[in-house]
Amino acid sequence: MRDEERVARVRALLESVRAEGRTALTAPEGRVVADAYGIAVPGEELARDVDEAVAAAARLDGPVVLKIVSPDILHKTEAGGVVVGVAGADRVRAAFHEIVGNARAYDAGARIEGVLVQELLPAGQEVIVGAVTDPAFGKVVAFGLGGVLVEVLRDVTFRLAPVSADEALSMLDSIRAAQVLRGVRGRAGVDRWAVAEQIRRVSRLVADFPEIGEVDLNPVIATDRGAVAADIRIILAEQRPVPRRTYGREEILASMRRLMRPHSVAVIGASNEPGKIGHSVLRNLLDGGFAGDIHPVNPRADDILGRKAYKSVADVPGEVDVAVFAIPARFVAAALEEVGRKGIPNAVLIPSGFAETGEHALQAELVEIAERYGVRLLGPNIYGYYSTWQDLCATFCTPYDVKGPVALTSQSGGIGMAVLGFARTTRTGVSAIVGLGNKADLDEDDLLTWFGEDPHTECVAMHLEDLKDGRAFVAAAREVVPRKPVVVLKAGRTAAGARAAGSHTGALAGDDAVYDDILRQAGVIRAPGLEDLLEYARALPVLPAPQGDNVVIITGAGGSGVLLSDAVADNGLSLMEIPPDLDEALRRFIPPFGAAGNPVDITGGEPPATYEATIRLGLADPRVHALVLGYWHTIVTPPMVFAELTARVVAEFRERGVEKPVVASLAGDVEVEEACRYLFERGVVAYPYTTEKPVAVLGAKYRWARAAGLLPGGS
Amino acid sequence: MRDEERVARVRALLESVRAEGRTALTAPEGRVVADAYGIAVPGEELARDVDEAVAAAARLDGPVVLKIVSPDILHKTEAGGVVVGVAGADRVRAAFHEIVGNARAYDAGARIEGVLVQELLPAGQEVIVGAVTDPAFGKVVAFGLGGVLVEVLRDVTFRLAPVSADEALSMLDSIRAAQVLRGVRGRAGVDRWAVAEQIRRVSRLVADFPEIGEVDLNPVIATDRGAVAADIRIILAEQRPVPRRTYGREEILASMRRLMRPHSVAVIGASNEPGKIGHSVLRNLLDGGFAGDIHPVNPRADDILGRKAYKSVADVPGEVDVAVFAIPARFVAAALEEVGRKGIPNAVLIPSGFAETGEHALQAELVEIAERYGVRLLGPNIYGYYSTWQDLCATFCTPYDVKGPVALTSQSGGIGMAVLGFARTTRTGVSAIVGLGNKADLDEDDLLTWFGEDPHTECVAMHLEDLKDGRAFVAAAREVVPRKPVVVLKAGRTAAGARAAGSHTGALAGDDAVYDDILRQAGVIRAPGLEDLLEYARALPVLPAPQGDNVVIITGAGGSGVLLSDAVADNGLSLMEIPPDLDEALRRFIPPFGAAGNPVDITGGEPPATYEATIRLGLADPRVHALVLGYWHTIVTPPMVFAELTARVVAEFRERGVEKPVVASLAGDVEVEEACRYLFERGVVAYPYTTEKPVAVLGAKYRWARAAGLLPGGS
Repeated sequence: MRDEERVARVRALLESVRAEGRTALTAPEGRVVADAYGIAVPGEELARDVDEAVAAAARLDGPVVLKIVSPDILHKTEAGGVVVGVAGADRVRAAFHEIVGNARAYDAGARIEGVLVQELLPAGQEVIVGAVTDPAFGKVVAFGLGGVLVEVLRDVTFRLAPVSADEALSMLDSIRAAQVLRGVRGRAGVDRWAVAEQIRRVSRLVADFPEIGEVDLNPVIATDRGAVAADIRIILAEQRPVPRRTYGREEILASMRRLMRPHSVAVIGASNEPGKIGHSVLRNLLDGGFAGDIHPVNPRADDILGRKAYKSVADVPGEVDVAVFAIPARFVAAALEEVGRKGIPNAVLIPSGFAETGEHALQAELVEIAERYGVRLLGPNIYGYYSTWQDLCATFCTPYDVKGPVALTSQSGGIGMAVLGFARTTRTGVSAIVGLGNKADLDEDDLLTWFGEDPHTECVAMHLEDLKDGRAFVAAAREVVPRKPVVVLKAGRTAAGARAAGSHTGALAGDDAVYDDILRQAGVIRAPGLEDLLEYARALPVLPAPQGDNVVIITGAGGSGVLLSDAVADNGLSLMEIPPDLDEALRRFIPPFGAAGNPVDITGGEPPATYEATIRLGLADPRVHALVLGYWHTIVTPPMVFAELTARVVAEFRERGVEKPVVASLAGDVEVEEACRYLFERGVVAYPYTTEKPVAVLGAKYRWARAAGLLPGGS
Repeated sequence: MRDEERVARVRALLESVRAEGRTALTAPEGRVVADAYGIAVPGEELARDVDEAVAAAARLDGPVVLKIVSPDILHKTEAGGVVVGVAGADRVRAAFHEIVGNARAYDAGARIEGVLVQELLPAGQEVIVGAVTDPAFGKVVAFGLGGVLVEVLRDVTFRLAPVSADEALSMLDSIRAAQVLRGVRGRAGVDRWAVAEQIRRVSRLVADFPEIGEVDLNPVIATDRGAVAADIRIILAEQRPVPRRTYGREEILASMRRLMRPHSVAVIGASNEPGKIGHSVLRNLLDGGFAGDIHPVNPRADDILGRKAYKSVADVPGEVDVAVFAIPARFVAAALEEVGRKGIPNAVLIPSGFAETGEHALQAELVEIAERYGVRLLGPNIYGYYSTWQDLCATFCTPYDVKGPVALTSQSGGIGMAVLGFARTTRTGVSAIVGLGNKADLDEDDLLTWFGEDPHTECVAMHLEDLKDGRAFVAAAREVVPRKPVVVLKAGRTAAGARAAGSHTGALAGDDAVYDDILRQAGVIRAPGLEDLLEYARALPVLPAPQGDNVVIITGAGGSGVLLSDAVADNGLSLMEIPPDLDEALRRFIPPFGAAGNPVDITGGEPPATYEATIRLGLADPRVHALVLGYWHTIVTPPMVFAELTARVVAEFRERGVEKPVVASLAGDVEVEEACRYLFERGVVAYPYTTEKPVAVLGAKYRWARAAGLLPGGS
C-alpha cells in the first residue's frame, strides 16, 4: 500500500469514528488500521458457507478458530458458537455445521451472517507493544513482556515515535527481562525482527496520526518464527494544539549569544535603596566587574549607584542586549512593550507573582507581547543569571566569580542557591548559572543549544521539574552530547502517581518511566539526586574521556578494594582481567602476599614508591583505560605525599599525551581532605571517607563517553 | 508420623544413599522424604495391572497421568509410554493398554513392572521452594516465583531455617512480584497457607539434617486450593564440622567488659623508639589519659616513656585485663602462652603476618593457644581499638577523644582510618572504634553483644566483609535491635559471582542475596556504602525515635519540596495527608498562593516567623510524627536565623516532652554549612546542598524503629 493511500484510508476511518462520537475503535476497525500499517494480526476471513470456510482454512494454512458471526448473538461461547483448534477440511466442515446448528438452537430467529475463520495463534512469549501520548514528549512507543508478572514488575521501555528499525530492536534489550527474549533454559528465542517490526509500525502509525492517543497490541504472541498481535486496541485523544512562536537554531543562538555575552544591560527598576531587588541586581552587576554598559532605568531617579538613570528603557542610548526586570509583576507587561519596541532581544524577568501564584493570565500576557516582538523571556520568578566569563552577575543573589567549564541551570530558586553554595565551597569553576523559573519562554533546550556552542562550557548540569517541549530538549541534547556531557536532575520522579489511562500501555507509562528511558536515549546522564548533580558537574570536566572499558583498581587497603569493586559493579563498569605480563610487572613491586589481580592490592604500609610504581604501570599500559586508586593513610605514605606523587605522575603522563581518567578514594584521618583538594585541582577526582563517590563520577563519565560514541557499546 | 519415626526413616534413607556413594536422591527417594515431612507432592500409585490402574485413578480422584515403569525403558515418551490427562475408568483402561502395547512394540524384551498412575496437577502459579547451605548462615530456606522470567529477574527471598509458620508466610510478601500471589487481573490468589506450609516443612527438613546440602521443590504448583510440588530434588553435602570453642553470653560479656573497661593494660613490645608500633601504642595510651595501670613489656628495657618496663608479661604485678601485642608475628605465639598462663582474658593482636599473608598455620596456632586458656583474641592484623569513655587509645593511629554514643567497628584497617577521619571532621561522639582484622576469634557478634549492654553506646555501626558465624550475629542483632540501631556495611556485595550449585535454589542464592534478606530479618539497617554507614552512625543517635508514620515536609523552596518528596518515597516513608483542621491552621501563616497540602510550601521570601509558626504547628500536632524541613537562603531569613529558631523551637517542645525526629535540607550559600553544624549539635539532622541525605537518615531511623517494634508494620 502506498503511503498516501494508507494514510487516507486510516484518516477516513478515524473521522468516521469521531463522527459517531466514539473514542475507542472496534476490533474490525482496529484490524483495518493494522492492515493499513502492516501490523501483523491473525489472518481471518468471513465464510458465508461451509465451502468458503474450508477454503479459508486452507489459505490460513494451519489450525483455525471458527466463530459464529451474528448481530443477534452477543455471547458467542454461551451459544456454542466458537470452536478452537480445528485442522483439516473434514473437521472444518464438521465444526462449521456444529456451530451454525448450535446458534440456531440457541436463537432460532438470529440472523447468521456466516462464520469467521481465524488463524489459531501458536503458544509463544507474550509481549506488549503500545503507544501513548506523553505530556512532555508527545507520541511515545512502548515495549515490554506481556502477562501478569510484568504488569506487576512494570518492566517496560519507551522511545520517541517514530522509531527506526534499529531503535525498535534496541528496545528488546532495554527491559530487565531481556534475556527471556533471547531464549533461556533451552527455549528458543523469539523472532526479534518480527517483534521490532511490530514496534516500528505502531510508532509510525501514531506519528502519522496525532489524534490517536493510545495504542495497545496486547498481547503480541512472539515465537521463533514471527510476532502476531492477538488483540489491537486504539483510542483517540482530544488534540490540544498549543500554538507557540518557535525559533530556529540560528535565532536561538543569536539571542542567547547576546544574553550570555552582552555589551549593554539595562536594569528596569534599578534602585538606590538597599534591600530592594533592583538595588542588589545593579550592585552585583557593578561589583561583578562587567565590562559592558550598565543602564539603570527608574522614572524617579536621575542617578543610581553613580550611574545615570533613565526614565524609560526607550531613553537608553544605543543597542541594549538584555533588560533585567526588577519591578513588581503588575508593571512588567508595560515595560516589556517598551523593551519590545526598542528591539531588545532578551528580557530577564526576576519578579514573581505570575503562574506560580496562579496568575496565569498575567504570564500569558507577557508571552503574547514577547512573541509579538520576538523578545526572548528568561523566567519569570527567577534569581537571575551569572555569566562568569563576562564578569556578569545579573542576579540579586551573592556574586560568584570562579570562572570554569561548568554551566548550571535550575528551575527552582532554592536549588539555584544550593548550586551557588556548593560551587563556592568546592571552588567549582563555572561558566554560567541560570535560573529558569516559570519558563514562560526560554527553556532548557534553548540554553542547551547555547551551551553546546559556548567554548567556555565543557559540561552542562540542569535541574528540572518538567520539560515544556521534550522533543526539542532531546534534539538539543543529541546535538550537544557528542561534545559535552549533559547531566540532568529530574525532580518529581515519584510524585506523579498513576494517570487515568484507557490502555495497558497508558497505565504502564508513568511520567518518570518515560523520562528515564528517553533522557537515556538522548545520551543525558541522569543524576539520582541533587548532591550527585553537583558532584558530577564539578568532577566530570576534571576527568579526560576514557578510551576503553578496562578499569583497574590499585589500592593500599584491601578493605577499600572490596568496596571499590562493589562500586565498580554498581556503576556498570568492568574490572579489567589483568594480562599475565602486566600481572608480572605489578608483582615486582608489591609484597608476595599482596594480590595482583584486580583490585591490585599493594597492601597497607607500603612506601610512596610502591604507589608510584604501580600507578605508573597502569598509566603506561595502553590496555588499561581508567584507574581507581584506594589510598590508606599510614605514617609511611602520608596523605599529601600520596597526593603529590599521584598528581605528579598523572601530569607527567599527560604531558606525554597519555590521558586517562584517574579517580581516588582516600581513607584516613582529616589530612586526607587537603590531599583530596590538591588532587582535584590537578585533574584527579578524589574524595575522602567514601569509596562510592569517585567511582560514581567515573561511571557517569563512562556513561557520557558511551553516549558520545567514544566507546564501543555506545547508544 | 511421630518426629522420631520421621527422622529415623529419612536418616536411614540418607545413609543408604551415602553408602552407595551418591549425593543426589532419586525421585522415589525424594518422595519418601517428602512423605516423611508432609511435603505435598502429587499422589501416585504403581499399578501392576489394568484393574489396579483403574482403582488407583479412582482413589486419586481427578485426571491422571499414566507412565510405563520399566528398568529397560529410559526414554518413556519416545517409547509412547506416557499418557497425560486421563479421566474415567474406560479411558484409564484404554490408556493402560495403549502404553503397555507401545512399550512392548518399542522393546519386546523390556521388563515391564507396571504403570505409574499419577495425579495430574492443575494449572496454577508456579513457585519455587528450596533450601541451601550458606557459608555464613548455614541452612537457609528460599522462596520465589517459578518460571523463566523470575529466574532471569532473580526475585527470590531467604530466611534462616527452620522458619515458623509466620516467617514462612512473610516470605510470600517479600518478593517484588508479591502481588501476583494475591491475585491480579481478576485471577484468584494462591492458597497462601499451603505455600507457606511447603516452605516451613522444607525448612524443618534441612534443619533436622545438616547433611542435606540443597533442596529444590521446583516448581510447586500453587492454586487457590493448595500447593503441590511437581518435582523434589535433594542433594547431600559434605559436612564440614568446624569445632570451635564457644563462649556463652555471660562469658562474652565478662571478657568484653574487661576489654572495653580495663583497669590494667600491658603493652607487649612497648618501645622507646619513635616510629615503632610499640612506641605509638604506648604513647597513645599515655597521652589519651587512660586512668588505669599501663605496663610496658619489653625484655630489653627497664623503663619506657617513663614507666617501669617488665621483661615478661608474667612479671607484671596484679591482674591484667588486656595485653596489647606490638611484636612481630613470629613472636606472638610464645607471648600469648604467657598471657594465657597469667590469666589475662584479652589479647589485642595488632601484628600482621597471619592468615592475610597466607600464614594460616601461624594463626591457627594462636587460636589453639587462646582456646586452651580461654583468652579472647582481637585481630590479628588490626590498628587496635579505642574506648573513649575510658580515655583508652590502644592503637598506633592518632588519638581520638570525642566521647559520644556511637560504637564503630571495621574489618579493614583502611576503613578504620576513614572512620577516624570522618568522626574527627564531623566531631562525631564515639563510644568505641574497634578493628577486627582477621577475626581469628572475636567477631562482630561478640562486640554487638557487648555494645548492646554498654550504657554509653546508643548506636552500633559495623563494616564487615564476611561473618564467621552468621547465626550468632543474627541472634546478637535480634537481642540488641529493640534497644539500639545496628547499621551494617557489608562489603563484597558484587564480588562473589555464582557459586557452583546443584540446584536451582543454589544458583539463585548469591551470597549477597542471602545476606541482604537475613540482615533485614535481623532488624539490621544495611548501609549501601561507606559514606552512608558513617552518616547514619553520626546522625541516628541525634534523632528521637518516630512514634508513627506521618511525615510532613515544610519548605521555603518549592523546588526542594519536590526533591524532598522524591526522597521520602525513595526511602519508603509516607507523606501524611494533612487533615482539614491542620491545613486550615497552616494556611493562616502562608501566602494564599503557597501550597498547604504536603509538602507544605510556605514559599520563598517568607520571614522567620512563618518558618517558626509552621514548624510549631507540626511539632504540636500529635498526628504528625516527623518533620522534614526545606530551607531556602534569603535575606529575609538568613541561615543562622533559621537554624537558631528551629533549634529553639525543637528544644522547647522537647522540654515539654514532645520528641519528634526533625531533619533539614539547607539550600543556600556557604553560610548554610555553619547553620547545619549548629542544628546537628542541637538535635536536628541537617545537611547543606542535598535533599537526599537528611531524608535517607530519617528513612534509616524509621527502618530501625520498625525493626525494634516501635511502629506498626514492624518485622
